[in-house]
Amino acid sequence: MYYIGIDLGGTNIAAGLVTPDGTIVYKESLPTGKERDTNEVVADMAKLAKIVTEKGGADMSEVVAVGIGCPGTVDNENGEVVFSNNIVMHHYPIVAEFKKHLDLPVFLENDANAAALGEYMVYGEGAESFVFVTLGTGVGGGIILDGKVFKGFNGAGAELGHQTLVYGGKPCTCGKSGCLEAYASVTALIQQTKEAIEENPDSMMAEWSRKKGKVSGRCAFECAALGDEAAIAVRDKYIEYVAEGICSTVNMLQPKILAIGGGISREGDTLLEPIKKYLAANDYNKYMPRTDVRIARLFGDAGIVGAAGSAMNMLR
Amino acid sequence: MYYIGIDLGGTNIAAGLVTPDGTIVYKESLPTGKERDTNEVVADMAKLAKIVTEKGGADMSEVVAVGIGCPGTVDNENGEVVFSNNIVMHHYPIVAEFKKHLDLPVFLENDANAAALGEYMVYGEGAESFVFVTLGTGVGGGIILDGKVFKGFNGAGAELGHQTLVYGGKPCTCGKSGCLEAYASVTALIQQTKEAIEENPDSMMAEWSRKKGKVSGRCAFECAALGDEAAIAVRDKYIEYVAEGICSTVNMLQPKILAIGGGISREGDTLLEPIKKYLAANDYNKYMPRTDVRIARLFGDAGIVGAAGSAMNMLR
Repeated sequence: MYYIGIDLGGTNIAAGLVTPDGTIVYKESLPTGKERDTNEVVADMAKLAKIVTEKGGADMSEVVAVGIGCPGTVDNENGEVVFSNNIVMHHYPIVAEFKKHLDLPVFLENDANAAALGEYMVYGEGAESFVFVTLGTGVGGGIILDGKVFKGFNGAGAELGHQTLVYGGKPCTCGKSGCLEAYASVTALIQQTKEAIEENPDSMMAEWSRKKGKVSGRCAFECAALGDEAAIAVRDKYIEYVAEGICSTVNMLQPKILAIGGGISREGDTLLEPIKKYLAANDYNKYMPRTDVRIARLFGDAGIVGAAGSAMNMLR
Repeated sequence: MYYIGIDLGGTNIAAGLVTPDGTIVYKESLPTGKERDTNEVVADMAKLAKIVTEKGGADMSEVVAVGIGCPGTVDNENGEVVFSNNIVMHHYPIVAEFKKHLDLPVFLENDANAAALGEYMVYGEGAESFVFVTLGTGVGGGIILDGKVFKGFNGAGAELGHQTLVYGGKPCTCGKSGCLEAYASVTALIQQTKEAIEENPDSMMAEWSRKKGKVSGRCAFECAALGDEAAIAVRDKYIEYVAEGICSTVNMLQPKILAIGGGISREGDTLLEPIKKYLAANDYNKYMPRTDVRIARLFGDAGIVGAAGSAMNMLR
């Protein structure tokens, strides 16, 4: 018995053949080509589903269901992506379109929620409450309560990146200002790095960016590790933004485990240790056991596993 | 069959005889006298429990259990208040002490969580997700999911007042800075009003405070209603702080209903309408049904009903 998990991203479509315990038997990906007609993207998703099943050594008759993790707000009941501004979709009937190519039960989940569920399934230790925060192009998140995705009554919740960090602060892509995402996403880190390079044209970061021909989220972290003062300042400030957002989240939810994922989470202890220290000094709970804050471990696979997992949960 | 709900506050102890559907049959209160030995306070709680049972026309044999709503962090399993800085308690065995006077099953709940549960029981319409925000001396809150108090794995969660509003902003009583409580509590409103009076010594607010001999949370609201420009500015800014905090909470949790309680909530539509407008313009969810944001209705009784309700839930 298998499930297929599909992680529909802005850059790649990733799909995997997944066992009920969350193990990926085989995975493969294709470029999304999000400028294309969305129907073509969906055709590729179905194609990938068939490929991973075959290369995973299974027969399609052994596949129980397909889970799709999509950006944006999804409506599983009506099988549509209500809205996504990454891959542009508006009331797009993704399930019906997918079934034209592969007629299996299909379930939708928001991509960040799916990733949260994936991480929980494999590394969540069955915690009654689990929060996943991704630091990527945006700041996403997912809340898993009693093994199920919690997303509010309308399915649009767990937007951890759109909690306020700075009232009246930087404009956010969501239309509000001062959201955590505007300070703690990789996009924000790159902006913070660029500003620091302008102010410190002789810094190691300036040299790094000239060599690479761009500024990425790694620039400040790599140069800070080499002792560049300006880079240390960027890195430490960025980490403090992340820590404050996590502190706020912990004060609200006190989850048993909070896992940090997304590109920046590959920095590991460089990121994690100062966050833990910040929480110990600032969070509200001084007397009860504390949230176990950790780096997520599934990385890119979380979306695949969790998409499959959401199909499992919905069939239950 | 009855339950006794006790709301232990910094000023008063309120107790009520409550039916399983959340109706208060009879209630009465006594001053807390929080400077006293806490054992004396607990003796008065037990005394009140007996009074409301008798005056409610019931026999103690008809009372199933007692619920106590306390400030601070409670540990129901060990029957103690782990920590409270309002009525000073530190690992205080409140249940054992109470039972010396009245030997019934006793359950503890944090006071804000109890109030949330009380409001939910009577006016929550069985919503799968319900959030209660109190604007009082502090900003408290409670999260009710599937009819039960959600407070994280350690019981210390749902501290809605200690989410960040302004990164690096005003110091909060909790030790962190920039918490919602530091901007949206009555205490904060009084401070904001005082500052405005200093800057506008000829404002109506200045006159109001001279007449009353103090500044209260009502000053800005009352003077604003009379057209005082400076008061309108204070009121509108204060409401915007509240609205931003609620927006952040809604982005995280998307509850079916969010009820605003506490002293300031008596301002009704003056408070509610601008908050709704702010949410419509700023919250993340633009495409799905929206959270029903409303003024709470049980006022002072929420704590009594919810304390009784937490005893009911724990016996289930």
